[in-house]
Amino acid sequence: MNPYLAYVPLDKATRLLNHGPTVLVSARHAGMSNVMAAAWCCALDFTPPKLTIVLDKSARTRTLVERSGRLVIQVPTAGQLKMTHALGNVSLKDDPEKLAHCGATLFELAGQDLPFVEGCAAWLVCKVISEPHNEQVYDLFIAEVVAAWADSRVFHDGHWLFEEADPAMRSLHHVAGGHFYAIGDALKVRGVMTD
Amino acid sequence: MNPYLAYVPLDKATRLLNHGPTVLVSARHAGMSNVMAAAWCCALDFTPPKLTIVLDKSARTRTLVERSGRLVIQVPTAGQLKMTHALGNVSLKDDPEKLAHCGATLFELAGQDLPFVEGCAAWLVCKVISEPHNEQVYDLFIAEVVAAWADSRVFHDGHWLFEEADPAMRSLHHVAGGHFYAIGDALKVRGVMTD
Repeated sequence: MNPYLAYVPLDKATRLLNHGPTVLVSARHAGMSNVMAAAWCCALDFTPPKLTIVLDKSARTRTLVERSGRLVIQVPTAGQLKMTHALGNVSLKDDPEKLAHCGATLFELAGQDLPFVEGCAAWLVCKVISEPHNEQVYDLFIAEVVAAWADSRVFHDGHWLFEEADPAMRSLHHVAGGHFYAIGDALKVRGVMTD
Repeated sequence: MNPYLAYVPLDKATRLLNHGPTVLVSARHAGMSNVMAAAWCCALDFTPPKLTIVLDKSARTRTLVERSGRLVIQVPTAGQLKMTHALGNVSLKDDPEKLAHCGATLFELAGQDLPFVEGCAAWLVCKVISEPHNEQVYDLFIAEVVAAWADSRVFHDGHWLFEEADPAMRSLHHVAGGHFYAIGDALKVRGVMTD
């Protein structure tokens, strides 16, 4: 277990996603776990925190989400670049050993029957809010965040600390194919109070 | 007119948003124009390109979007930090001179009766796809991108060039309050073909 795993209060959970990182989506149903990468995930509301996530009909992870109604959204790091890209390009249908071959290791959290990916910067446990029209027409899922954790070396007191942490912990931001960016320098507007 | 303004083919338009930048939303109705900042904007589909954008019921820009059915999503730059923050925190209701006071200058594009913000890195003209349930319950709007442009110094041939361009042209990624990040270093997965 990562000794830096720290609970994030729900009223700060959207801050894990506001800066637009590429995410990993994991889910479990009937003993089967899977993880995929997704660039199209976005915060939707503050309290209770909600998010949107686009899950293609061909994705095996989507089937697990549909059957269980639950998922984990994770913020992978620059150090997980190769793994993140592989998780977005290999299907469990083609490779039953997908997770191992992509280099993803799962861990468990007490009380959560869900697969969490080791080494990420943040983890958000979500419950799907059923919206069949959005899901069928747009592949768009709406989910409520019911618990969240972050690695306290890179997210603390409601703020990311990318400028202080190991550069390998920076979030990933996908463009296309194998082309990503890491998040960069902090910019602060002077004279603005920030809690 | 910005001499670097270049048309982006629609099948590459989502690449302007894949990396999760904070955006500016502008709209016009009956001669009134407004611009707001929004962190919750996300690509939704490739062809035709679609996106989601969260517009709070209190936002005057939302009213303009609802009445005209059209909007521009813009990718502001690190050099526009102060302006972007101000556009997200000042309402046209409180300050009829909001745009001037925030430092935003608008320009026109032929054939588009829409307000475009000068100095951004990219501009996406969108048409709202009416989804009253999402709009009312979640403040979530779905829109189709019908035309897109980018500044060719920072986006070319379907890819961002942040690593080569002036650092002041990097995209902004909001966390909370006056705390943002600029996009950072390019990361490329080796051996992956990218078009």
